[in-house]
Amino acid sequence: MRTGHPLEFTPALSHESEVPLYRQLYEHIALRIRSGELGRGERLPATRELAGLLGLNRTTVSAAYDALETAGLIAGQVGRGSFVTGQPEPATGGVDWNAMLDRGDVMPAGPTGGFGHEVASFVMSRPSRELFPLDDFRASCQSVLSRPDLGSILQLGSPSGYEPLRRHLMDEARRQSLARPGDDLLITNGCQQALDLIGRVLLRPGDTVAVEDPVYTGLKNLLTGMGAQLVGIPVGADGMDTAHLERVLERERPRFLVVTSNFQNPTGATLSLAARRALLEAARVAGVPVVENDAYGELRYQGEALPAIKQLDEHGGTVLLRSFSKVSFPGLRVGWVVGPKPLLDRLRHAKELADLHTDQLSQAVLLDFAQSGRLETHRARVLQAGAERLAAALDSCRRYLPAGTRWTQPQGGMNLWVRLPEPLDAGELLPRAQREGVAYLPGRYFAVSRLDAGALRLSFAGLEPEQIRNGIAILGRIMTEEIEKASRNMEPSSALV
Amino acid sequence: MRTGHPLEFTPALSHESEVPLYRQLYEHIALRIRSGELGRGERLPATRELAGLLGLNRTTVSAAYDALETAGLIAGQVGRGSFVTGQPEPATGGVDWNAMLDRGDVMPAGPTGGFGHEVASFVMSRPSRELFPLDDFRASCQSVLSRPDLGSILQLGSPSGYEPLRRHLMDEARRQSLARPGDDLLITNGCQQALDLIGRVLLRPGDTVAVEDPVYTGLKNLLTGMGAQLVGIPVGADGMDTAHLERVLERERPRFLVVTSNFQNPTGATLSLAARRALLEAARVAGVPVVENDAYGELRYQGEALPAIKQLDEHGGTVLLRSFSKVSFPGLRVGWVVGPKPLLDRLRHAKELADLHTDQLSQAVLLDFAQSGRLETHRARVLQAGAERLAAALDSCRRYLPAGTRWTQPQGGMNLWVRLPEPLDAGELLPRAQREGVAYLPGRYFAVSRLDAGALRLSFAGLEPEQIRNGIAILGRIMTEEIEKASRNMEPSSALV
Repeated sequence: MRTGHPLEFTPALSHESEVPLYRQLYEHIALRIRSGELGRGERLPATRELAGLLGLNRTTVSAAYDALETAGLIAGQVGRGSFVTGQPEPATGGVDWNAMLDRGDVMPAGPTGGFGHEVASFVMSRPSRELFPLDDFRASCQSVLSRPDLGSILQLGSPSGYEPLRRHLMDEARRQSLARPGDDLLITNGCQQALDLIGRVLLRPGDTVAVEDPVYTGLKNLLTGMGAQLVGIPVGADGMDTAHLERVLERERPRFLVVTSNFQNPTGATLSLAARRALLEAARVAGVPVVENDAYGELRYQGEALPAIKQLDEHGGTVLLRSFSKVSFPGLRVGWVVGPKPLLDRLRHAKELADLHTDQLSQAVLLDFAQSGRLETHRARVLQAGAERLAAALDSCRRYLPAGTRWTQPQGGMNLWVRLPEPLDAGELLPRAQREGVAYLPGRYFAVSRLDAGALRLSFAGLEPEQIRNGIAILGRIMTEEIEKASRNMEPSSALV
Repeated sequence: MRTGHPLEFTPALSHESEVPLYRQLYEHIALRIRSGELGRGERLPATRELAGLLGLNRTTVSAAYDALETAGLIAGQVGRGSFVTGQPEPATGGVDWNAMLDRGDVMPAGPTGGFGHEVASFVMSRPSRELFPLDDFRASCQSVLSRPDLGSILQLGSPSGYEPLRRHLMDEARRQSLARPGDDLLITNGCQQALDLIGRVLLRPGDTVAVEDPVYTGLKNLLTGMGAQLVGIPVGADGMDTAHLERVLERERPRFLVVTSNFQNPTGATLSLAARRALLEAARVAGVPVVENDAYGELRYQGEALPAIKQLDEHGGTVLLRSFSKVSFPGLRVGWVVGPKPLLDRLRHAKELADLHTDQLSQAVLLDFAQSGRLETHRARVLQAGAERLAAALDSCRRYLPAGTRWTQPQGGMNLWVRLPEPLDAGELLPRAQREGVAYLPGRYFAVSRLDAGALRLSFAGLEPEQIRNGIAILGRIMTEEIEKASRNMEPSSALV
C-alpha cells in the first residue's frame, strides 16, 4: 500500500456503478490482500487520509474497513490504525498476473464527484450537460443518416481521419493562419490521444519533457507512464514563467515542451502575448519542439483573443492540438493536431497502430454540426453561460473566501485555482467539505515538482451559478472555521493557564 | 532508402486522395531528398521493384521518377538505375524534425487497393459495404436519438465503456461462459486498440512475444514498434503448430502469446479443438498469458463452431478480444476485451491515458443494433454472402490456378492463403496482376521469421462472387503464363542451338 506515498493507492471507483462505493473500495483492497500485493502486517492509511485522497466521505471508507475486518482481512488496533491480517490465496492458474503486472505504475485517479447530499462538485473539468443542444445534435445526425455516402462512413476509414472533416478543419486552420505551408492535419480521439501519439512518436524512456507546474493530471500520468522525466515550469498569472522556462530549455534540452496557452488546466491562467513570444524564442534557440495544447482556447468569455503560439511560430517548431470536446460533446471523441508534415506522418502511423482510425460516425456528425452553423450557435450559448458561471465563481470567491485567500482571474475556460491562507491544507479540508456537500480536487493531483498543499482547483463550467455560489459560500465558511480552530490550537490551552 | 531492405521504404499512399498517386510518391521521395534523409548518390529502387512493393502500376512509379528528374532531384543512369542528385534544403527552423524523428521505425504500409481498370482487389480484409443494412442502422440511430439519456451519452464517459453496452456484453460473455467469475470487460476502439493496450501494459522494450507466422501486419508492426522481439510460430491448416509453440514457450518464456483462434488473418486457418487444448496446456505450464484475438470468430460460414480458448481455459491465463467491426460496421470503432480483473484494471488505466474513453455515440448505437435483433439479422445476411464468396473463391482456385498451387480451406472469415508453385514470386507477379486489374498482398507483408516469397493473401469477403471468379481467373492465367515463361528461360535459347 506504500503508505509513504499514499497517492499511489488510488483505485478507480465509479460513482455511477450500481455497486456501492464502500463495497467497491472493499473489493479493491480485498483483492490486493488476497493477491498478496498487500502483505500481512502492512498498515492501511487512516480513514480520514484515504477519504480525503479519494474524495470519499470518511463514513464510506470506514464502512469498507469494517467489511474488511468482518471478512478477517484486516484488524484495527486502537490508536495505531488498521493492519492487514489476511493471507493471500494460493495461485490457481499458470499466469501470475500480480507478479506480471508491474505494480509501480498504477495511475492515480481523483475523486470523480457525486455523493450523498451534493451541493456542488467542482471536481470535473467538463461542459454542462444541461447546455447540450440535443435537437441541434439530432438534426446533424439526421443529416448524416440521409447522406449518400453513409455506407462509406460505416466502412473502414483512413488513419488520417474522415476526409471531409479533415479538409474542413485544414481549411479553417489555413484561414486562421494556424496551418503553415507544408503542415498537415490528423484527426485524433480528442486532445488526450494527440498527446499520447506525440509521446509515442517522440519519447524514449528517460527523456525529459518540460510541462507546466501544476499541470493537467492526465498529461502528467501519461508522460510519466511512458518513462519520461517531467520538469515543471511554474505557472503564474500569465501562464508559464518564461524566464524559468528559458533556463530549463537551455540546461535540460527536453525532448519537447507542452504548454496550454489559453485557460490552462488546472490554473485557468493564459499566456500573455509577450510570454508567447518569449516562449517561442526560447524554444527556437534550444531547438525544442512546442506542443501547444489548446483544448480551452475557444471558451473565452471576456477580453481579446490572443494569437496561438502556432500562429506566431515562423520556424515550424510548434504543433497545435484542438478538440470538439470542450466546446461541444466530450462523449464524442474527436480532436485534431496541426503541425509539420514530417511529424504528422509519424503521428498518422502511430494512430493507425493505436486504433486504425477515429470513429467515423462522430466525425461526420461533428462536421455537419460545424458546417450547418449549429456549432457556432451552441458556442455562443456556451460562452454566455460560461461568462455567468465564471462571474459567479469570481464574485463568490471575493465575497465568501476568508482574507488571505488568493485565486486566479481567468477570462475563460473551466477552471479556477485557489490558494488557501496558511495553515490550511486543501487535502485535509476536503473530507469536511464533502460532508457538507462540496467537492474539488486538491492541488497535489496536479503537482509536478512543487507540492502546493494549500492549493485547490475549482472546475466551475459544469455548474449552475447558484450551485457555484452555494458551494463557494460553504467552502468559505469551512475555511474560516478551520482557520479559527487552527489559531485556537496555536494559543495555550485555557486549561493549562 | 535502404535498398538492401526495401520493405522499409513504404510511404502511406492514399488511393482516395485527390492528389494523383504518382504525385504523392513524388512528394514522399522529394521530401526525403530535401530533408537529407536520402543522401546524394543513393540509389532508388528499380521502378518494377517499387511498383510491386507498393502495389502500384509501374507507370505510376515511372511518372514519379520522371517528375523527380525534372525537378533535378534524381538522375537516371542507363542500366544502373536512378540516383539522388538533389541537395537537402538548409534547416530553417529551430527544430530539426528529421533528426528528431528516428527514421528506423517507420511502419510498412501495403497497397490499399484501387487503380485504373480494377477487376478485383483482394487487398483489404474488410466487410462488403454493399451489405451494410443502412435502414436498420438508421433505425438504431433514431432509437438512440430519442433516448432520455442522450445527454449523458454526449457527456464525458467512463474509461470502462458506455455502461449499458458493457453490461450487455458482460452478460453475453457470462452466458457463453466466455467470462469467468472475477473477470472484467473493457470497451476498446476495436481489437487493434485492445492489442495496443495489452502491449502498453505488459511489454517492456526487448521483451519477446510469440505470434503466428505469418501474422496480421497491424499486430506485427504494433509489437515491433513497442520494441518487442517477435517469435513466429508456423501456422498450418490447423492453425499454430502447437508442438513448435510448446518448444518456444519453454525455451523463450515470451511475455505473452497472441493467437487468432478462428479464420486467422492472413491464412484463414482455424485452430482445432485438440490444438486449442494443447496450446492452453503449453501456456499454462510455461506461465505465459494467452491473448486470444477473435475478430473473425462470428463469421463462420460452414462447419461446427469450436469453443473459444478463453472458454476452455480453467486457469485464468487467457484474455479474449472481440469486436463489432468485422460483423457490422468497421467505421464505428468498438471492440472489447474480457479477462482477469487484475489485467483489466491495468488496461482500463491505460485506456484512460490513451484517449479517456471510446466514442459513446457509436457504443450506444451498436448496443441498440445488437439488442433490437438487427445485428443478428445482419449477421445472417453476412454469413450467407460470406458463404457464397468463400465458395466462389475456393471453387475458382480449383478451377483456375495451375497445378502445384496450394491454398487453405477456411470455413469462414475473410481471407485465403495461396502458395504459388515454384519458381513464382508473389511480389514479382503483383505488378503484372495489377496491370490486368487484380491486386492482393504478397506474403512478405505478413512474414515474421519465415519469408515465403511464393505466398499471397486473397481477402475475398469484400468482393462479389463474380469479381472473385474473374479476379482469380486472371491470376491463374498470369501464373500459368509466368510458369511457362520461366520454364522457357530454363531451356537453352533457340538462337544458340
